[in-house]
Amino acid sequence: MNSETVITLPHCNELLLDLNQGVLNLTLNRPHKRNAMNSAMVSELMAVFESIEANRAIRAVVMRGAQGNFCAGGDISDMSKDSQDGSESSPELSPSKQSSAKQSSAKLRDATWHFNRSFGKLIAKVNRAPQLVICILEGAVLGGGFGLACVSDLAIAKPNAMFAMPETGLGIIPAQIAPFVVARIGLTQARRLTLLGERLDGHTALELGIVHHVADDTEAVLARNLKIFKKCAPTATAVTKQLLLDVAERPDMEPLLDRASDDFSKAMLSDEGQEGTTAFIQKRKPSWCN
Amino acid sequence: MNSETVITLPHCNELLLDLNQGVLNLTLNRPHKRNAMNSAMVSELMAVFESIEANRAIRAVVMRGAQGNFCAGGDISDMSKDSQDGSESSPELSPSKQSSAKQSSAKLRDATWHFNRSFGKLIAKVNRAPQLVICILEGAVLGGGFGLACVSDLAIAKPNAMFAMPETGLGIIPAQIAPFVVARIGLTQARRLTLLGERLDGHTALELGIVHHVADDTEAVLARNLKIFKKCAPTATAVTKQLLLDVAERPDMEPLLDRASDDFSKAMLSDEGQEGTTAFIQKRKPSWCN
Amino acid sequence: MNSETVITLPHCNELLLDLNQGVLNLTLNRPHKRNAMNSAMVSELMAVFESIEANRAIRAVVMRGAQGNFCAGGDISDMSKDSQDGSESSPELSPSKQSSAKQSSAKLRDATWHFNRSFGKLIAKVNRAPQLVICILEGAVLGGGFGLACVSDLAIAKPNAMFAMPETGLGIIPAQIAPFVVARIGLTQARRLTLLGERLDGHTALELGIVHHVADDTEAVLARNLKIFKKCAPTATAVTKQLLLDVAERPDMEPLLDRASDDFSKAMLSDEGQEGTTAFIQKRKPSWCN
Repeated sequence: MNSETVITLPHCNELLLDLNQGVLNLTLNRPHKRNAMNSAMVSELMAVFESIEANRAIRAVVMRGAQGNFCAGGDISDMSKDSQDGSESSPELSPSKQSSAKQSSAKLRDATWHFNRSFGKLIAKVNRAPQLVICILEGAVLGGGFGLACVSDLAIAKPNAMFAMPETGLGIIPAQIAPFVVARIGLTQARRLTLLGERLDGHTALELGIVHHVADDTEAVLARNLKIFKKCAPTATAVTKQLLLDVAERPDMEPLLDRASDDFSKAMLSDEGQEGTTAFIQKRKPSWCN
Repeated sequence: MNSETVITLPHCNELLLDLNQGVLNLTLNRPHKRNAMNSAMVSELMAVFESIEANRAIRAVVMRGAQGNFCAGGDISDMSKDSQDGSESSPELSPSKQSSAKQSSAKLRDATWHFNRSFGKLIAKVNRAPQLVICILEGAVLGGGFGLACVSDLAIAKPNAMFAMPETGLGIIPAQIAPFVVARIGLTQARRLTLLGERLDGHTALELGIVHHVADDTEAVLARNLKIFKKCAPTATAVTKQLLLDVAERPDMEPLLDRASDDFSKAMLSDEGQEGTTAFIQKRKPSWCN
Repeated sequence: MNSETVITLPHCNELLLDLNQGVLNLTLNRPHKRNAMNSAMVSELMAVFESIEANRAIRAVVMRGAQGNFCAGGDISDMSKDSQDGSESSPELSPSKQSSAKQSSAKLRDATWHFNRSFGKLIAKVNRAPQLVICILEGAVLGGGFGLACVSDLAIAKPNAMFAMPETGLGIIPAQIAPFVVARIGLTQARRLTLLGERLDGHTALELGIVHHVADDTEAVLARNLKIFKKCAPTATAVTKQLLLDVAERPDMEPLLDRASDDFSKAMLSDEGQEGTTAFIQKRKPSWCN
């Protein structure tokens, strides 16, 4: 009996899972939202990576997005709906209503903080997965999806993939992904890409070091690399990856990521963040573009 | 009344300032010295960046050099004149003269240290400016001018720009810019460029990641990028930039920069530094090249 | 009398040394092993770099490998022989034999740890050499040889050089070189190259920033760069290099390298490491490739 056969992967609604010869194929599956991540998807991803953490028979995880997009980031319309719900509770301010509005606003800030921070914990978990993590990138690779690409061990893009961190255009910030983007491409490109929100195709992503390969036939590149990878010993691979990340990572990453969530929730609930995300949903320009 | 109209920018002798639609155009203006920085220019730059720090209506600062050069670095002839003045006071050494020579030498070291350190504080201030900082690079981009380029969010070079850190050829060291150069291009290229003092053109600067764009028509690239940038929300931009820099920067940058000034003033006042800077002014080769 | 003439370089069996006009030409000389490093070579390299540390008349060290290869890494057959010797002492386990086997195993782990750690101390020493360190890279540039290339100030490769970190394919890990590889090429390429063990030629090494130049005539590139370098002042060069490395290096490098040796000796003496290194020597595939 093969050790793979006894693995129980968590049941998922937002992900497709397929385990085949030591490779876990994981597909983000909310194609109507270009696979943008809601809370449920973040939780399911976390559960999957936790369930395989101690398993050396699963050698690699290949992440893809369903139907032509990798991942459009966090699902802004969900997040924004929550915060609209919150702010709708305070139009009139009698003393008791004021107090309840304050509570509601505190609750809202808490919820925003935790959604953001839970994504950061996920990305840190994927970064630290003892398996080889491979991303196949096409279509939208935006915001949090860009962040996921930045923690892969091997990133293979189609030429027409579209990479961007559009957060500041919505009045919000690329909070949890910031350290991983800097680790991926360095400060010089990170400051330009986060501050301008520019869109890049697969070839430019290769030039800037976001991905390792660009090809029309990403599956052929994947197959070639998996073949090379399978010559490497499982435990030695996991130990090497751990050592590399310890070498590269700042000792004070966690407090920085906590603070990034403070910054994110402030931005999300600020006038800019409310205007930017609302404008996005209403498909109009935000006020600062006038 | 637009918030821009109430901004009072400091009066400057070494800089040209022009505020236009949220963009501050700042021109280093000592063209007879290829815009090399003296103490006055460093002070004026610091004053300008301090005056706009809290101002979110100024969205971007575009730095240029007057008349075909960006900036040739620190003004060695000024610095060297100071140190020559100091050393001229000690040719004969009676006991009282000896003590006064010692004092003079200590004073000189202090002055050198503070000139160097004040440039480091400036470069850190520009690095941390909440605005988008853009450098338009042509002609000489040397030493401290190279350092300024390294803290821009967007760097656009002409093909014929000439980048170099020529310090060790003068017997001195690239002290305050060292951490910013490493953050900009990584250790691998930083060690080669600082230790060899090689000259690079705009295309090589792009390849090595010093700049983001190279073009004959730098103003067209600038206009295109400013248009993209203006879609981004002002406060979110400032918060994102702060977070990115916190993520990238070592916690112990300040003590390192203090030590860099110790190293610089020792180098400047050493036999090598005196010989190198004097040879530079006298347009001859320093002794170690014979 | 020139200061060079009084330098006493250590007597070496595994290295060729030639001091010429301030340049120390150092050739790794175990061509029958593609210049793989045994303990003796590591000790000799350390002794050479220690002997020249305070000497400013030696301006540069040029490292080469004898007969067409730079360096194939640590000499696995030596290391493996040692660990086989150790494990052969424990086939039957009477109480007294068991205790002696335990002692032997502890000794073996100690020896493996110290061999690995001493290589790490060497690579840190070369990284910190006050001279300009230049590597001329051709043929095999593997494992520890790759690590040496990563601490050079100037790296010049032939197009047909073959770069790789094949450790995980042997069930062992790139332990001591990990921090230097990350400092050299960043985490993005480091994780791919260490985890896949891919082979790269000189041109790809240039693209990834492992080397600074690729050319058929490496000696011509060397001569051109030495000429540029000799314009730089000796002490200023040494101080600049020290400052750069302090800026770039993590404060906690040493404990990390100690831990890397723990990881290495565990890997080497594990089932994977024993199988991988034995298979390598027996020129067969290790068990995990079946």
